[in-house]
Amino acid sequence: MAGRSRRHGDQLVKDIRDQAQSPEEFEARLRAIGAARYHDRHPFHARLHGGDCTPDEVRAWVINRWMYQSRIPMKDAAFMSRVTDPDLRRAWRKRIEDHDGGPTEGGGIRRWLALARAVGLDPDYVASGVGIMPATRFAVDAYVRFVRDMPLLDAVAASLTELFAPRIHAQRIEGLLQHYDFADDSSLSYFKKRLTEAPEDVKFGLGYVLTHADTLEKQDAAAAALTFKTDVLWAQLDALWHGYVEGKIPPGAWKPGEGMAA
Amino acid sequence: MAGRSRRHGDQLVKDIRDQAQSPEEFEARLRAIGAARYHDRHPFHARLHGGDCTPDEVRAWVINRWMYQSRIPMKDAAFMSRVTDPDLRRAWRKRIEDHDGGPTEGGGIRRWLALARAVGLDPDYVASGVGIMPATRFAVDAYVRFVRDMPLLDAVAASLTELFAPRIHAQRIEGLLQHYDFADDSSLSYFKKRLTEAPEDVKFGLGYVLTHADTLEKQDAAAAALTFKTDVLWAQLDALWHGYVEGKIPPGAWKPGEGMAA
Repeated sequence: MAGRSRRHGDQLVKDIRDQAQSPEEFEARLRAIGAARYHDRHPFHARLHGGDCTPDEVRAWVINRWMYQSRIPMKDAAFMSRVTDPDLRRAWRKRIEDHDGGPTEGGGIRRWLALARAVGLDPDYVASGVGIMPATRFAVDAYVRFVRDMPLLDAVAASLTELFAPRIHAQRIEGLLQHYDFADDSSLSYFKKRLTEAPEDVKFGLGYVLTHADTLEKQDAAAAALTFKTDVLWAQLDALWHGYVEGKIPPGAWKPGEGMAA
Repeated sequence: MAGRSRRHGDQLVKDIRDQAQSPEEFEARLRAIGAARYHDRHPFHARLHGGDCTPDEVRAWVINRWMYQSRIPMKDAAFMSRVTDPDLRRAWRKRIEDHDGGPTEGGGIRRWLALARAVGLDPDYVASGVGIMPATRFAVDAYVRFVRDMPLLDAVAASLTELFAPRIHAQRIEGLLQHYDFADDSSLSYFKKRLTEAPEDVKFGLGYVLTHADTLEKQDAAAAALTFKTDVLWAQLDALWHGYVEGKIPPGAWKPGEGMAA
């Protein structure tokens, strides 16, 4: 009986595995989510990269995007706090190092503050987070909580928006350099650095997701996680557009003129 | 009225601050907790350092202490996941690097597995965590949850058992070298390394706690956190003594002969 039962179980596992998409199909499904929903399709980015943003719209973007930048290392630490495999922690730690940098130099968040300075803002004001829109906070906090609470596979899948990031960063560097006086190698160093950092991260993350999502149920969950993450990014730009392009700034959010460099 | 009210508020804050212990008194209070409750006072350590442990008792200690070692980087990541101050994250990250090491070399947990090998165990068995006593798991998990959920000050205060660690590590190195054949520079490298790493960490942590515990209420909370942490360490040795010195091994825990190196 035990033998028959095990054979029955093996058959069930095989049936479940057989329902899964092939790695190629599944990767194509993930990439289609990016093609349809990644925030390079948001009108704010067309406006920004096309040179149509006012200086204050650029500043509002820099201030609010700080919320996302500043939470990325916390998100990655939340992930690592749940990882029992030392090798996975060791591989993931690079992301925190990339964003936080060393005790006194380097790191994505310092490069973001250099951009803040270049657009005329006081970096200390931006770093304080005081002027961030509540909708931005909610979206980014939702992402950090997602990574802290959901299965590791879903958390890694959510990070796969990085698959689509190099394209937007390349467009951004080109568009900003062409259209805005503040743009130069120094102020845009954040994006230039991400051009090399992100592909390395995403190669690891994509390999992890393709390997670990070995049933259709897990593939559905991973696809949902990536969709969720595109929502997190999109919602930030919707809030930005409503507040600063349409001029409906919510209570407590940055007002033009505040937080400028001395 | 606003002026009077503010003066009243300032006076209240001053009254609350005045109730706090001085930094010197408070540090002495923290050190007294270690003197009374740190696990260097546990009879298991006297037995271990005095050369009275059987080889299997040493192995049981190595297997169970792995639970603690392996969760330290997760605990530190849980802490970092809640820290919004980039400088504090940058300072704290060293702890994860110290324990996890690089992709292929170094790190406290690899040094712990070298000790496992030296006492005749299969490092893969130890790393799998299969033989760990449930009571050990509960104690260590309680610590990780504490750091994830409690105020940052309490989390840092809990780490201050490191104040008392160099003494026990020095005793341990001396005692093990004197009494056990497996002990040499290589097998004891974990403890030798901690002799230099821990004082650096604790200097930072103690400074943080003395600075941030600026009311009696916070000092009480920090003292309670450190007391809790001494409980976490003590409970592991009580379980070890009951299981392996008194020979009452609970279901599922390592049995002598299992998990030996080939």
